[in-house]
Formats: sequence, structure tokens, C-alpha cells
Amino acid sequence: MKIESVDLFYLAMPEVRDIGDGSQDMLLVRVRTADYTGWGECEASPLTSIASFVCPMSHSACHPVHYSVIGQDIEKPDDIARITANVRANSLDLLQSDHTLSGIEMALWDLLGKRFEQPVYNLLGFRHAELKSPYASVLFGDTPDDTLRKASDIRRQGFTALKFGWGPFGRSTLADDADQLHAAREGVGDDGVLLVDAGTAWVDDVEAAALRLPALEDARVLFLEEPFVAGALRSYRELAARCNGLRIAGGEGSHNAYVAEHFIDHSGAGYVQIDTGRIGGIGDAKRVADYARKRNVQFVNHTFTSHLALSASLQPFAGVASDWLCEYPTEPAPLAVALTRDRVAVDRNGFVAPPEAPGLGMELNLKAILKYVQDVEITVNGKTLYSTPELVQ
Amino acid sequence: MKIESVDLFYLAMPEVRDIGDGSQDMLLVRVRTADYTGWGECEASPLTSIASFVCPMSHSACHPVHYSVIGQDIEKPDDIARITANVRANSLDLLQSDHTLSGIEMALWDLLGKRFEQPVYNLLGFRHAELKSPYASVLFGDTPDDTLRKASDIRRQGFTALKFGWGPFGRSTLADDADQLHAAREGVGDDGVLLVDAGTAWVDDVEAAALRLPALEDARVLFLEEPFVAGALRSYRELAARCNGLRIAGGEGSHNAYVAEHFIDHSGAGYVQIDTGRIGGIGDAKRVADYARKRNVQFVNHTFTSHLALSASLQPFAGVASDWLCEYPTEPAPLAVALTRDRVAVDRNGFVAPPEAPGLGMELNLKAILKYVQDVEITVNGKTLYSTPELVQ
Repeated sequence: MKIESVDLFYLAMPEVRDIGDGSQDMLLVRVRTADYTGWGECEASPLTSIASFVCPMSHSACHPVHYSVIGQDIEKPDDIARITANVRANSLDLLQSDHTLSGIEMALWDLLGKRFEQPVYNLLGFRHAELKSPYASVLFGDTPDDTLRKASDIRRQGFTALKFGWGPFGRSTLADDADQLHAAREGVGDDGVLLVDAGTAWVDDVEAAALRLPALEDARVLFLEEPFVAGALRSYRELAARCNGLRIAGGEGSHNAYVAEHFIDHSGAGYVQIDTGRIGGIGDAKRVADYARKRNVQFVNHTFTSHLALSASLQPFAGVASDWLCEYPTEPAPLAVALTRDRVAVDRNGFVAPPEAPGLGMELNLKAILKYVQDVEITVNGKTLYSTPELVQ
Repeated sequence: MKIESVDLFYLAMPEVRDIGDGSQDMLLVRVRTADYTGWGECEASPLTSIASFVCPMSHSACHPVHYSVIGQDIEKPDDIARITANVRANSLDLLQSDHTLSGIEMALWDLLGKRFEQPVYNLLGFRHAELKSPYASVLFGDTPDDTLRKASDIRRQGFTALKFGWGPFGRSTLADDADQLHAAREGVGDDGVLLVDAGTAWVDDVEAAALRLPALEDARVLFLEEPFVAGALRSYRELAARCNGLRIAGGEGSHNAYVAEHFIDHSGAGYVQIDTGRIGGIGDAKRVADYARKRNVQFVNHTFTSHLALSASLQPFAGVASDWLCEYPTEPAPLAVALTRDRVAVDRNGFVAPPEAPGLGMELNLKAILKYVQDVEITVNGKTLYSTPELVQ
């Protein structure tokens, strides 16, 4: 089979708000051979990724992403690895290409899964998928009362694990942050799992982060996510050494497996969080999951968008019982909800697993998302390099 | 002073060839306040970087780059650091933003230097600029004879140091690679400094690289650059441990100071090569130079384009005598030559230094580059987000 077309679609909510909600737009990827269609999603700036796919070549190590994908043979998982390696080599100096590749790679797995009539995790070598504990991933409320209410609501929906992030936390006073944490613990209940995402609030300032440790440990937070920006590994390590019981999590910024492996080796973190929509796709994420397991670091997906992305994020560690947590987006924008007819449903016991249907197991509802499609055109010297393709034909 | 405008210009040669020559196109940046104009250059895919500058916001950590720059106060060097930090925070999830920021940051230094009538290295705290030994940076010839001829020519031009890179090297047989190295040594002469750039040929395969060590050491190569891709730090470290006399160099892929610091800490390399047009600009490059010096790693600029980029690349280590090498692009495309009226000239003793004129010290020849300007238009839902601005007004 040859890859006949790769189509990128920029979808967005009518209004995109200046909040930490990554589900307000998406870059949807459709890959087609003569007989099969695969879908993927980049966790990336859609317009920038489109440009990286179609841009003119700058030199031999700065090709557009399409150069390494269109027309390639795709018969088996090794072909995906080969295409990935070619994108990395031919677009070495094109920074955005890792994000763009991610959605394409995901779509290739979806396509191969459909061809072989197997879920992607089977193609990755897992015989079956383990159940995971989903944690509801939501933004902190504007006030402790809001946070308490949110936590109680989510607990009532059947979630026993809950992560609050972004919002005012870490950017406010110590006392305000402590109030937020106590409200969160009260809402999730004594027996609930409470996680906190600082959203890189302290950049690389260990002391600023350490000031919050007593309140975090008092609220029995299991992990503190991204106290610092992705690269500040020494800060991560210093903070980790000062924790009593609390573990550190991070790694979502990893745009290739090497970056995540450095994080595992040098951060002192107990959890590595990988977004298959950023790291280069399912193959790189699987490599990181395998690497983490040998070093007693727990792999967790990073997912804040649709159930297509959620299914893709679950595949790399689907068969690993010890990696028991799953980030589960709980307040996605209507666009992300509308994308798929299928869902990664929470079962009656509160667990989730990737779909058993072929590929990523997600039938898309194209008619429902048509209204979100952004009409993009990019021309260079009068030649149209990109024009939004037809989503429904 | 307020930043009133930031204009991006995509320039390209009429024909861009599929070779390792990064000077075939450029993204030129013009920043203006009411009274001053600064110029910079991104070492990046121009179209992709333009998209990252103008794209619609995706969420609070994925703003377009312009959001953190236009309208900002710019009075002193601290303002550049503040703007850089804001780009990093507001465009955290926009991978390409580091490359785009690089040219803007460079232009801000140029602008402040003009305002204070000082070269940028003075604003960075250096009282004077040390002389550097430029190494001519060229592609390997297609055959050993070509390489010998190139080396002899360059030696006759007055260069005593020479780096060959890319081309067939590392992608050919062991014997061919050895022939290339011996030709290079013969051409540069017994007393010349010979450097080799493998252009990530062996990805992360230590054994493939190690096979070339005897020939490299036999040809008395001072450093071997980029045997592996940027992230493959364990491969770097293993290879470095197997060298006798030869040192390893790398780091050009660093897109922020953290990445370069990890490289210094974990690669075993003796040289770190930083491109101010990629790492986020002159400020991040200076931070890496300071970090490297404390760890006995030599800082070298990575420059393969114009003399505007070369001047910017020299500033971060201008005052440091122990960082004595300077990558000097020797076969730039006509576009890169045409850009500036001024040059970083090689003096009669074979040394170079950054210009003493204010800012980056480069007067641009706008009329000469007009013919290279690419006419770009980006529209989303009928609204024009980018249209190539007027270069000459």
C-alpha cells in the first residue's frame, strides 16, 4: 500500500479563550491509501504545523514534513518506524516537525490496525489491554469554593482520582494555594487520589516551589506535575530530593523520545507524562514507556483533548499493569466531544481501557465537526501550498 | 520606547538545492520603535516561523509569538530578557516559537546597541572583543580530489583552520571516508587545523561512528561534530570515552539554554556549538557560553548563513579569549552575501572579531536583496494573518 494523501484539518471553537484548556482547537490528520483511512490528532498549534507540512525546502536537513510521508509504502509497523526516522532526518532543522509528525504517525497506526483488524496495542505487541484508573483532569476553580464544588461533582460522576491544574494555582499567595489544596482534598474525599498540575508556574525556581511542599503534602497529593518548565531538570531533581511522600511528575513537553529519556534519567521524577500528539506519535511514546518501566518511573499519558487522542495515548502502555493511571480529559470543549461517535468509556467499576475495535477504534462524526473547520490558505509567490481540503466527500 | 512593529521577510534563492547549505534561504526580522530599527535572522524554516508568529491562539500556553512582543517596552537589556521569558511562557506549547524568537531577540539587541551607540558585546558586559580564529566551514567535495582542491584553495585564502562537513561523509564506505579525510589533511597542510562535521550521519549508532575514529585520529582532526542527532547524549558520551586525542563537538540543535546545558553536562563533548538563530537569541547563547566556560567546554558559534547572523553569533563569547574558534561561513549563497554591506572581515593575520559599530554593526543592502523576497500570504477564514510587508519604503 502507498500513502496516497495526508490531509490536515484545522478545527477550532468559535471563541478560543485565554485559559489552560487545550481542547479548544485541534489539528486533525487524515491519511489514506487506496483502501484504508487512518485518523490522528496533533497536540500543536494547527496553523504552524500545517506550515511545517507544506513549506518549501530550506536545505537538505530542512524539508517539509510531507516530503518524507506522501507516496511511502505502508504495509507493517516497521514502515511506520522507517517513515518516522525519515521525517526526523529530512526535517532535522524544522523544529515544529515533531508535533506535525505526531498526528501523522498516529493515523498510520490507526490505518494499519484497520487493515489487520486489530487494535493498535496488539500491533505494538500487547496481547491484551489492562484496565487503568482514569483521573479526571480539570482546571482549578477560580476560588476554593469553586474547586470544592468541582471536586465533589467529579467524585459523584464516579471518578476516584482527580487532578487539578493551572488556573490561579502557583501564581497566587501561599495561603491561597493552601486553601485551594484543602478544598480539593475535601472535595475528592479522604480515600480519593488527588493530583496537582502546577503548569510550570515556577519556571525553574526551586525555592518558590518548595514553599508549597508542606501544603501539598498536608493535602496528601500523590504527584505534583510540572512545577518547572520541561528543560529545568536540575530544578526537578532538587525539588524531588526535598519531598516527603509527594512524587514529582512531568515530561509532557517532550518532543522526541530522547528528551523524555533525559527527563527520566535526570529529573528524579516518579512519573513521566507523555503526549502521543507531541512526542512524535505512538512509537516514540512506547519507547519511553519501555524505558521508564526499567527505571521504576511510572508512565502516564498526557491528554487534554479528544477521545481520538485519548485512545492513541492509551496504546503505548496498554498492556502494562503497573502503569495504572490514565489522564482522562473531563471538561473538553464541544469540538473535542463532537469529533468521535465512540468514547473511551469509564466502566461501572471506574476503570478505562482502549477500544477493542481495529486501529484506534474511534469512528469520527465528520458532519458534527464540519462547522468547526477553519478555512486556511497559504500561498507563496502566487502558488497555493495549502488550502483546507474537503472533510466530507 | 515601545516595539511598534515586528516584520518578517522570507528570502530565498531562485533555486533551493537538496544539499546541506543553510544559506539558501533566510527569515529576516525587522523590529522597529519610533526612532530605531533592529535586524535579526532566524536559522529556521521561514514559512513555519512566520506561521508561529501570526497563528491564532490555541490556549493560554499556545499564543502566537507576536502576542508577547508587539507593544512591549524596550529600554534596556533586562527588557529583552523579560520579553524572552514571556515568549517562552505564553508560547510554551508552540514548538517552533524558539526559532522564531531567536531572530526577534537578535534584532532587539541590534536596536538597543544602536540606541546606546555601542556594540552588542558591550551591552553584554564585555569591555572589548577578543580576536578569534575563523575556520572556513564548507561541504565535503563529491570526491577526495574535490576536497583536496577545496582545502588548498581555502588555505590560500588565508584560513589556517578548516571544517569539512556533510556531503558524502559518513554515508559512504569506511575507505571512502578515510580517503576524504586524508585529502582534507593534505589540502589544509600539516600545520592547519582540521575539523569534521558528520551531520548526524550515524543517528545514535556508536559502533558506526567508532569505525571512523582511526581515520579521524590519523588525519589529526581536532573535533568531530555531530556524529549523532542532538538528543542522543548517551551515544555522545560513549563515543567521547573511546577517543584518543579527538574531541567531540555538538549542540547546534539546542533550541533553548537548558537543552545546551544538558548537552554540556552529559555528552562528554569538548566543544558546544550554539546557533544564536535557533537557541532563542543572544541572551540564551551567552548563558550557555558562561555555563560551558565553568565546565571546561569550549564555546563555538554555529553559523552557516549571513554576516548579520555571524555578527550576532560572535557577541555571546566576544570577550572570552579561551573560546578562540569561530565558525566562518565560506561558501554562502548569493542571497546571504547580498544581505549586508558590512562584513566580519578576516584581518591580515587571519583573525576575526565582531564589528565595533553600534548594535550588530551590519548595514543592510535592502535593494540588493529585494529580488529574493518571497511573496507570502496566509489567510484564515478570509482574514489575512500575514502578507509580506514592504522591505524598502
